[in-house]
Amino acid sequence: MKSKPNIVTIGGGTGSFVVLSGLKSYPIDISAIVTMMDSGGSTGKLRDQLGVLPPGDLRQALVALSEAPDIWRELFTYRFENGDLKGHSFGNIFLSAIEKITNSNQEAVDRASDILQTSGRVIPITFDKSCLCAKYEDGSVVEGESNIEKIVKRKTRITKVYLKPSALMNLEAKRCLERANYIIFGPGDLYTSIIPNLLVEGIRETMKYLKVKKIFITNLVTKPGQTEGFKVSTFVDELEKYLGEGSLDYIIVNSSKPKEELISLYRKIDRATPVEDDIGHRYRNAKVIKANVLSNVRYVKSSSDKLKRSLIRHDSDKLARVLYEIIRP
Amino acid sequence: MKSKPNIVTIGGGTGSFVVLSGLKSYPIDISAIVTMMDSGGSTGKLRDQLGVLPPGDLRQALVALSEAPDIWRELFTYRFENGDLKGHSFGNIFLSAIEKITNSNQEAVDRASDILQTSGRVIPITFDKSCLCAKYEDGSVVEGESNIEKIVKRKTRITKVYLKPSALMNLEAKRCLERANYIIFGPGDLYTSIIPNLLVEGIRETMKYLKVKKIFITNLVTKPGQTEGFKVSTFVDELEKYLGEGSLDYIIVNSSKPKEELISLYRKIDRATPVEDDIGHRYRNAKVIKANVLSNVRYVKSSSDKLKRSLIRHDSDKLARVLYEIIRP
Repeated sequence: MKSKPNIVTIGGGTGSFVVLSGLKSYPIDISAIVTMMDSGGSTGKLRDQLGVLPPGDLRQALVALSEAPDIWRELFTYRFENGDLKGHSFGNIFLSAIEKITNSNQEAVDRASDILQTSGRVIPITFDKSCLCAKYEDGSVVEGESNIEKIVKRKTRITKVYLKPSALMNLEAKRCLERANYIIFGPGDLYTSIIPNLLVEGIRETMKYLKVKKIFITNLVTKPGQTEGFKVSTFVDELEKYLGEGSLDYIIVNSSKPKEELISLYRKIDRATPVEDDIGHRYRNAKVIKANVLSNVRYVKSSSDKLKRSLIRHDSDKLARVLYEIIRP
Repeated sequence: MKSKPNIVTIGGGTGSFVVLSGLKSYPIDISAIVTMMDSGGSTGKLRDQLGVLPPGDLRQALVALSEAPDIWRELFTYRFENGDLKGHSFGNIFLSAIEKITNSNQEAVDRASDILQTSGRVIPITFDKSCLCAKYEDGSVVEGESNIEKIVKRKTRITKVYLKPSALMNLEAKRCLERANYIIFGPGDLYTSIIPNLLVEGIRETMKYLKVKKIFITNLVTKPGQTEGFKVSTFVDELEKYLGEGSLDYIIVNSSKPKEELISLYRKIDRATPVEDDIGHRYRNAKVIKANVLSNVRYVKSSSDKLKRSLIRHDSDKLARVLYEIIRP
């Protein structure tokens, strides 16, 4: 009997949520490594006020992998609307409380996993408190993930993102990568959800000696202030800048066109456009897989973070089917 | 085979916590009816800001009855110390979130019971939002449980407490009383934890036609601003004023004297004194049971509400033993 393939996702936010939600029903061992650089909103406040790990990305990965009764997933994504708790999601508060009680970062996440009966493990990329910084082509620097997010009108291109101070990779993340057969990057915000994971000390060295296959799920739309004008090749080039040129083994590109009305909506509200596919069926060392991985869901009613506005988004099931074709034993 | 006795506690706060914690390991069916008049602190804020049931008394009863792993009880009593969440207990936040999601008061409590694996049911005395008011001998009136609590220097004696507007008894509470073999009142703050339950519409009528036996656990110390100078008989008289004269079947009075140093401490800090036992072995229709039910615990390290300052308090196990002697089949 072949053993189950060991899969690790690297990312954060809604992108990881979509991948994990889809993959969890397949016969694989799955772990989610998530960024710890989020500094905005409820997450940023709890991080600063309570000195806990930024809970937002942990929460989304935990909920995605949860097999617990619906009430738990509802609870975890519930966001308070009034008073002292306004804007805080219950899941964030829960993770903060559990961390305060256990006084141990990974134990807090594992306890939350137990309670949410997750079908995989969630692992913070680092336990160090560090600030994500972006340097732009014009020489300017913006410090803090939430401040980078605030820039919606792109000044000049981001030439480099880095951490200040430097952060050390969580040893559990290292162990997890060493056991992996496949690593899945994205989808998600390139500079604020995916690349931050690659900036922690130790990860590039670890990746180098591993024979693990690397899959990149490219984005569907550009992000104002960060990846405006990016094509599929630009996304790949930028990721490989941090991962090592020619590192990727598979690149998944959506082949289905979003509805015109949604494209107009995105252009109007966010100045975001669908990412143009400018690559063939191979790109450097990677096999490029083009498939319809687009969601047909028109409107997602959810109190969860960013789901509401992600109308052009990946479909969990379609994406998982394409991924499983690659990773199946 | 005799069926297990059906026991209902009526009260709130630390008093109910102590009774329920002790009784839960006995072979009985237990339910806790708790007051919904608390309007202070974290509880009052959440009640006002989110429009939920005041969670504090529910939380204490749920934790007392919980058989869940320790982490849950720790979580439920954990109180945040900084930032937006400062002063709020996690348990209160949890109950508020679950009520917001289920959109049903009793369902929220039952769901929380499931999660905390309680060995009995917790039932709010009412779902109506109502304000506890106290009228004093000098004619003055104080509205709001938290405002009554604020009066630490007794003006004149409380002549009457009432609800404004009136509140209807929760039907589940009625059903629960109808099944009961014994009702246990107290220990707890007479005017703010015990009597408020007796002020809801329907409860006195229900009590009248029930043959259920009634047990009163009298207080150990007086409460500044409310029961200063009260003796055991005064407590009983006041309770029976609301319950009906001669209603009680058993009165439990502590027979052990607290340590002198604790008595001085209470006198100094709170102007509270041990309640003087001025009754014999029968009082009206009640059998008076005198027993050592005093806790030897000198200092309770706990993030739970009022436990820290209750150095002179009932011992859960001793109290449960005395109670079980009465209620055993």
